[in-house]
Amino acid sequence: MSTPQGQQLHDFAARLYPICRSITGEGLRATLRLINERVPLSIQEVPSGSKVFDWTVPLEWNIEDAFLSDPSGRRIVDSKAHNLHIVSYSEPVSGTYTPEEPAPRLHSLPEHPQWIPYRPSYYKRSWGFCLRHRDRESLPPGKYRVEIGTSLAQGSLTFGEAVLPGRSREEVIFFTHACHPSLANDNTSGMAVATALAEWLAGEPRRYTYRFVFAPGTIGSLCWLRHNESRLGRVRHGLVLALLGDPGALTYKKSRMESREIDDVAAYVLAGMGPHARVIPFTPYGYDERQLCSPGFNLPVGRLTRTGNGGFAQYHTSADDLTLIRPECLEQSLEACRRIVQVLEGNRRYINLSPKGEPLLGKRGLYGSVGGRSPADHEQAILWVLNQSDGTASLLDVARRSGMAFGSIRDAATALEGAHLLKRGADVVSRPHERKRTRKPAGSARRAAAVKRPGPRKNAKGGGRK
Amino acid sequence: MSTPQGQQLHDFAARLYPICRSITGEGLRATLRLINERVPLSIQEVPSGSKVFDWTVPLEWNIEDAFLSDPSGRRIVDSKAHNLHIVSYSEPVSGTYTPEEPAPRLHSLPEHPQWIPYRPSYYKRSWGFCLRHRDRESLPPGKYRVEIGTSLAQGSLTFGEAVLPGRSREEVIFFTHACHPSLANDNTSGMAVATALAEWLAGEPRRYTYRFVFAPGTIGSLCWLRHNESRLGRVRHGLVLALLGDPGALTYKKSRMESREIDDVAAYVLAGMGPHARVIPFTPYGYDERQLCSPGFNLPVGRLTRTGNGGFAQYHTSADDLTLIRPECLEQSLEACRRIVQVLEGNRRYINLSPKGEPLLGKRGLYGSVGGRSPADHEQAILWVLNQSDGTASLLDVARRSGMAFGSIRDAATALEGAHLLKRGADVVSRPHERKRTRKPAGSARRAAAVKRPGPRKNAKGGGRK
Amino acid sequence: MSTPQGQQLHDFAARLYPICRSITGEGLRATLRLINERVPLSIQEVPSGSKVFDWTVPLEWNIEDAFLSDPSGRRIVDSKAHNLHIVSYSEPVSGTYTPEEPAPRLHSLPEHPQWIPYRPSYYKRSWGFCLRHRDRESLPPGKYRVEIGTSLAQGSLTFGEAVLPGRSREEVIFFTHACHPSLANDNTSGMAVATALAEWLAGEPRRYTYRFVFAPGTIGSLCWLRHNESRLGRVRHGLVLALLGDPGALTYKKSRMESREIDDVAAYVLAGMGPHARVIPFTPYGYDERQLCSPGFNLPVGRLTRTGNGGFAQYHTSADDLTLIRPECLEQSLEACRRIVQVLEGNRRYINLSPKGEPLLGKRGLYGSVGGRSPADHEQAILWVLNQSDGTASLLDVARRSGMAFGSIRDAATALEGAHLLKRGADVVSRPHERKRTRKPAGSARRAAAVKRPGPRKNAKGGGRK
Repeated sequence: MSTPQGQQLHDFAARLYPICRSITGEGLRATLRLINERVPLSIQEVPSGSKVFDWTVPLEWNIEDAFLSDPSGRRIVDSKAHNLHIVSYSEPVSGTYTPEEPAPRLHSLPEHPQWIPYRPSYYKRSWGFCLRHRDRESLPPGKYRVEIGTSLAQGSLTFGEAVLPGRSREEVIFFTHACHPSLANDNTSGMAVATALAEWLAGEPRRYTYRFVFAPGTIGSLCWLRHNESRLGRVRHGLVLALLGDPGALTYKKSRMESREIDDVAAYVLAGMGPHARVIPFTPYGYDERQLCSPGFNLPVGRLTRTGNGGFAQYHTSADDLTLIRPECLEQSLEACRRIVQVLEGNRRYINLSPKGEPLLGKRGLYGSVGGRSPADHEQAILWVLNQSDGTASLLDVARRSGMAFGSIRDAATALEGAHLLKRGADVVSRPHERKRTRKPAGSARRAAAVKRPGPRKNAKGGGRK
Repeated sequence: MSTPQGQQLHDFAARLYPICRSITGEGLRATLRLINERVPLSIQEVPSGSKVFDWTVPLEWNIEDAFLSDPSGRRIVDSKAHNLHIVSYSEPVSGTYTPEEPAPRLHSLPEHPQWIPYRPSYYKRSWGFCLRHRDRESLPPGKYRVEIGTSLAQGSLTFGEAVLPGRSREEVIFFTHACHPSLANDNTSGMAVATALAEWLAGEPRRYTYRFVFAPGTIGSLCWLRHNESRLGRVRHGLVLALLGDPGALTYKKSRMESREIDDVAAYVLAGMGPHARVIPFTPYGYDERQLCSPGFNLPVGRLTRTGNGGFAQYHTSADDLTLIRPECLEQSLEACRRIVQVLEGNRRYINLSPKGEPLLGKRGLYGSVGGRSPADHEQAILWVLNQSDGTASLLDVARRSGMAFGSIRDAATALEGAHLLKRGADVVSRPHERKRTRKPAGSARRAAAVKRPGPRKNAKGGGRK
Repeated sequence: MSTPQGQQLHDFAARLYPICRSITGEGLRATLRLINERVPLSIQEVPSGSKVFDWTVPLEWNIEDAFLSDPSGRRIVDSKAHNLHIVSYSEPVSGTYTPEEPAPRLHSLPEHPQWIPYRPSYYKRSWGFCLRHRDRESLPPGKYRVEIGTSLAQGSLTFGEAVLPGRSREEVIFFTHACHPSLANDNTSGMAVATALAEWLAGEPRRYTYRFVFAPGTIGSLCWLRHNESRLGRVRHGLVLALLGDPGALTYKKSRMESREIDDVAAYVLAGMGPHARVIPFTPYGYDERQLCSPGFNLPVGRLTRTGNGGFAQYHTSADDLTLIRPECLEQSLEACRRIVQVLEGNRRYINLSPKGEPLLGKRGLYGSVGGRSPADHEQAILWVLNQSDGTASLLDVARRSGMAFGSIRDAATALEGAHLLKRGADVVSRPHERKRTRKPAGSARRAAAVKRPGPRKNAKGGGRK
C-alpha cells in the first residue's frame, strides 16, 4: 500500500541512514546539510566546553576508521562495514587486545546473535566495539590489533532550526533528534517526517510561527533550551517527533501536565486515525521530552511516536534498519502531524455578539427559512457554536461536547464570524509565566489595539496575553 | 392502565387539540382561554413590530379558510379538514395554480404517504399547502384554484402566565410552548401537564414562587425574556415542559451548565422512576431551552420530555395525534414534575448547632436509649444530617452520599431543626449575578435579621442572597 | 498459620478479655494497667458530672456481683458466669421479679438462642439481665430474686495515653476504644494491635509524634477531644483501630473528607495487602470516628477495621469471643498499621534543585554511564522523582503516577537528596485552620530558618506551616 508520499518519506530516511552520526561531528553536519536541501536551516554551533545547565558540551568526536583484527590480521570488526560496530565516542586507540580483557570492550547480544548492538559512551572516556554475538563466539584466541581512528577535540555541537513565521510570534515547535548512526526508526523516521511536515507547512497560511529543531538528543535539546531560554514563553504547543516508521500503533505521549491544548488536540486527532491509535500518559523516560518537560521548563510539548523506546526488540540494534520502517507508517505519522497542525490553527475561543436568545439566522442566510424539519449538520454546528461561545469554550471543546467534527464546528464559526455574530476571544491557552512577564507593561495598550482593529493579525498577536 | 388522573390529562389535551394555533392570533388566544378556565392566567400582548433582541414580533396571522380545488372544482386540500393542510403563516392568496409550479408550494412525505406534514413559514412571506403524499400522487393535471383566506396584519403576540406566590420571591419557572396546531404530543401534552401541575401546586404550601408560562415557541420565550429581563435573577430553577405524552422513556435534558441544582434534583427523581427514565446532556437544539439557555441568559433550566424532537417518526406530522399520547405517560410526566417540586421545596443546607462531637440524642428522644443494636433508618438519617450539616452539603447531597431516600433525610432534618440542633443555612444555589447585585447594600442587615428571627419565612427569603 | 507475632497479639487479647469493663470504673482501670505494663501510659481521670460538649460524664459504675435466682433459689443468671449477663450500668437492685414483668428487664436473642447479647444503658437509669434465649425459654413461673450489687457514684472516667515524641510536634493519633466487657473482637483486638504498634514504634526513628489513646467509646473520645481541643491542630493523621481480629477482609474506612493524606496512604497500603483488602466510604455510624470526624472537628482520621460494626452475626454477643479473633488476622491488621506508618513517615514533597533539564546523573554515580539500554528500576525512579519534584507532588503521588513501589521512589529521593539535587518542600498536607492560626505571626521567620538550616529536624518542624 505504498503511496508516492510514503515512498518519498522512506527514500529520504534511506539517504540519512548510512551517515555515521553522533551528538557532535561531521556526521551530524552532513545530516543537517541533507535536510537543508529541502528546508532551509539556520545552523548553530555550540563550542566544546560550553556550560549548559548542569552539563558541559563534550569534545567533538569524529571517526576515520576503526577496526579490530584477529591474530591472522583479518578485520573481524570494522566500522566501515557498519557504523554500529564502534562504540560512539570511543577514544583513539592503537594497540593490542585479547578477548580475555574486561568484557566492556566488546558488546554483543546473546539473545539476538545476528544483531549488532548500538552503544555510546558520551560522558565517560572509553572505547569499545559492538558485534554480532555469533561472530564473537567464534573469535580465535590470541592477540588482536585494535585501531580506532577517532578524534576527540575542541570543536562544537551542531544543531539546525527552520523557522516558518506566522501571523503570531507564538510558536509551535517540532523537536527531532538527529544524533544516531544507522538506526532507521531511531530516528531517520522522525527526521523524514519533520522535514516533509516543514515543507508542507511552508506552503500553508500560518497563524502560529513554526519552529523545527533538528538536534542531538539530550545535550542538543539542552543547548537549544539554553540558547532560547528567554524566548520559551512563546512556545504555545510542541511535539517531539521520534520513532515514527515502525508498524506499531500511532501513539501520542502526553505532556508533563497532561492537560495542555496539545494534549487535547492530539488525543482528538488520534481518535480519528483508526482503532489502534492510542494516547499514553507522560513518563519522564523517552527522548527530548525528558528535557523539554523537566520541571524547570515544563513546556506544553508531547511526543508523537509509535512503539516507543525499548518497546520493539530491534531498538538500538542493527535490526533497526530500513526494513523496519514502512512507507505507509511514515505517511500515517506525517498525516497525524498535519491534522494536529490544522486543529491547532483553527482552535479558538469566540464570543457570541448576540448572546441573548438565538440571533435570527434565517435573515442572514444561515438557517433554512421553512421550519418543521430537524436542522441539518451545518445548522446544528451553528447552534452549538453560538450557544457555547461565551469566551470559555474553544472550538475543540465545542466539537467534543457536541460530538461533531472539528471541521464542521470551525466552518460554522467562520460563517458566524463572517455574519458579525461572533468575535474572537482570548487564545485558548495562555502560558502563565509569560502572562506574568508581559501583561503589566504592555497589556492595556495591546488590548485596546485588539478591540479597535479586530483583523485576524492583531487578534492572533494579542490573544494569548489577555 | 388508565387512571382518572391520566384520563383527565388526556381529556384536556383532547380539548386543546382541534384549535388552529400559531405563534400569534386567535387560535393562540383560544388556547390560553381554555387553560385560564383551570388556572388563572395573566395575559400579555406584545404588538407586532416590537423589537425583541435580534428579532421582531411578526404581523398577527389569522385564518378563516384555505383550500385548493382541482380542475373539477373539488376541494382536494382544505384547512377545515385538518389544520395542518395550510402552511402556517401563509399569506392570503386567491388565484390559480398548476401542480407544475415550483414544488415548495406543496409539501408531502413520500416515506409516509398517509401523513400530512406540518410546515410553518413565520419569517419569510410565503404560502403553501401540506397534504398526504398518497393524495398528491393522484392529482389530475390542469388548473387548480387557490383560495387562502388568511390575514397578516398589525396585531400582537399573546402569552399567558400563572404565578403562584411562595414564601420566597425566588422563582421556579415552567415553560410550555403553546403555538402548534393539532399536534397532540407537540405540545397539547405539555400544556395539559403544566396546567395540572399548576392546579396541584395552587393547593400546596410553597417555599418558592412558581411561574407557569404558556407562550409560543422561540419568539414567545424571547418576548417573555425581554419583558422579564430585570427579574431573571429571581429564577432559581426551571423546566421546559414539552412532548410529554408519547410512550418513549421519561427524559430529563440537562441545563446548559449541566451542574445546577435542577440538574441534580431531576436526575435524582428520575432515577427513582423506573429503569427506563434517563438523563441526557444539554444540546442547543430543542424547544425554549434554546433561548432560556442561550449564553446571555444561561438560566438554570432543564427540560422534561420523553422521546424528544425528531426522535419519533410522527414528529411534526398529522400522525402526532391523540392516539400517540397516552394517559399513563402523561400521568408519569406529571408525577415526575411533582416529585421534582417536592425535592426542590425540601432541599436546603443546614448548620449543625452542636458540631463538636455528636449531640446527646437520647435525651432529646431522637435515639434509642439502650445501645447495642444497629441504629434504625431514622437514626442513621439523623447521624448523616448532623455529620454533613456544615453549611456546604444540601439535603440532596446528604441523600446521595448516604444512599438513603431524600424523604428520610428531610424528615431527619426536620426533627433535628425541631430539637434546635440545626439551623437553616444559605440556600443551595445562589445565582452569582444576583449575589453581586444585592449583597453589598443589604447583605449585613438581612443576615442579622435571619439570625435574630430564624422562622422559616425569614430564612427562605434571605437565604439565597448570602 | 499462626506466627509468634500473631500468637502474641492473641495472647494479649486473651488477657484483656475476662475483665468486666465499662465506660467508667475499675474494669477500665485494670485494662489500662495491663496495657501500661507494655507501653507506659499517662492516665487521665475526668470527674463524674464534668460537662463535655453536649454531654455529661456519668457517675462511675462498678459491679461486685449480680444475679437472678429462680423460685427454687438457683442462680439462673449470674454475672460471675459471664460479664455480659448484666446490662452495663444497671443500677443497684435488691428485690423480687416475675418473668411476667415488662420485657425490657430481660434481653435474649431468639435467632441465636445460644448467645448472650450485650446491652448497656449508660445514659438512662435502668437495670436488666442478658441471657441465652434457650435458658429464658425454660424459666419456671414464680417469683425470682434479683440482686444487683452495683454502685453508681461520684467518681471519674478514665483514659490513657502513650505519647512517642518525634522530630516534629505534629501528631499521628491512634484511637482505640477500651470500654467493652468480654467482647474479643470488639475491642480486645484493637487494644492488642494498638499496644503492639506502640511497642514497635517506640524502637523506630520518628518524624511525627505518635499518640495512642485508649479510652471508652464516645464519651471517652469526647473527653479526649475536650481536653486536647487547643492542640488538635497538631493532628496531621489518625486512625481509629477497632474490630481487627475477625477473619473478614482488612478494611479502611475513609475520613469524613475522604481526600486526606491518610486516605491516600491507607488506600495505597491496602492495595498491596492482598486481593480482599478494601476501602469503604465514610459513614457517620461506627466507633470513635463518629466524634473525631464530627463537623466541628473534622479530623483527618480514618478507621482500620475488618468486617465492621454489625457486619458479623456475633457482633455485641457472647459469640464475639476468643475463637472469633485469629492470630493471623490480628497480625495482618498490625502489619497494615506498620506499613501505613512507614509511608506516612517517608511521604514528603521535594523541590528539584536542578530543574532545568535533567541533571547529569552519571557523574554523581546515579545513572549507568554507557547508554543504549533501558534504565533500570532505580534509574526510572530517579527520573520520576526529579521530574515531579516541583513542590506540588508528594512521593506517594509520584509512586501512584509512576506505578512504582513507594519504597523505590522514597529510596530514589533519598539518593537525590544525598547528592544535593533535591531539597525538602512543604509538608504534604497542611491543616487549614492551623495555618491560619500560626502563619501570620511567625511565618516569615520560620521560612527563613527552614531555608538556612535545612536539616531534617528544622524541615520537619517548619514544614506544615508554610
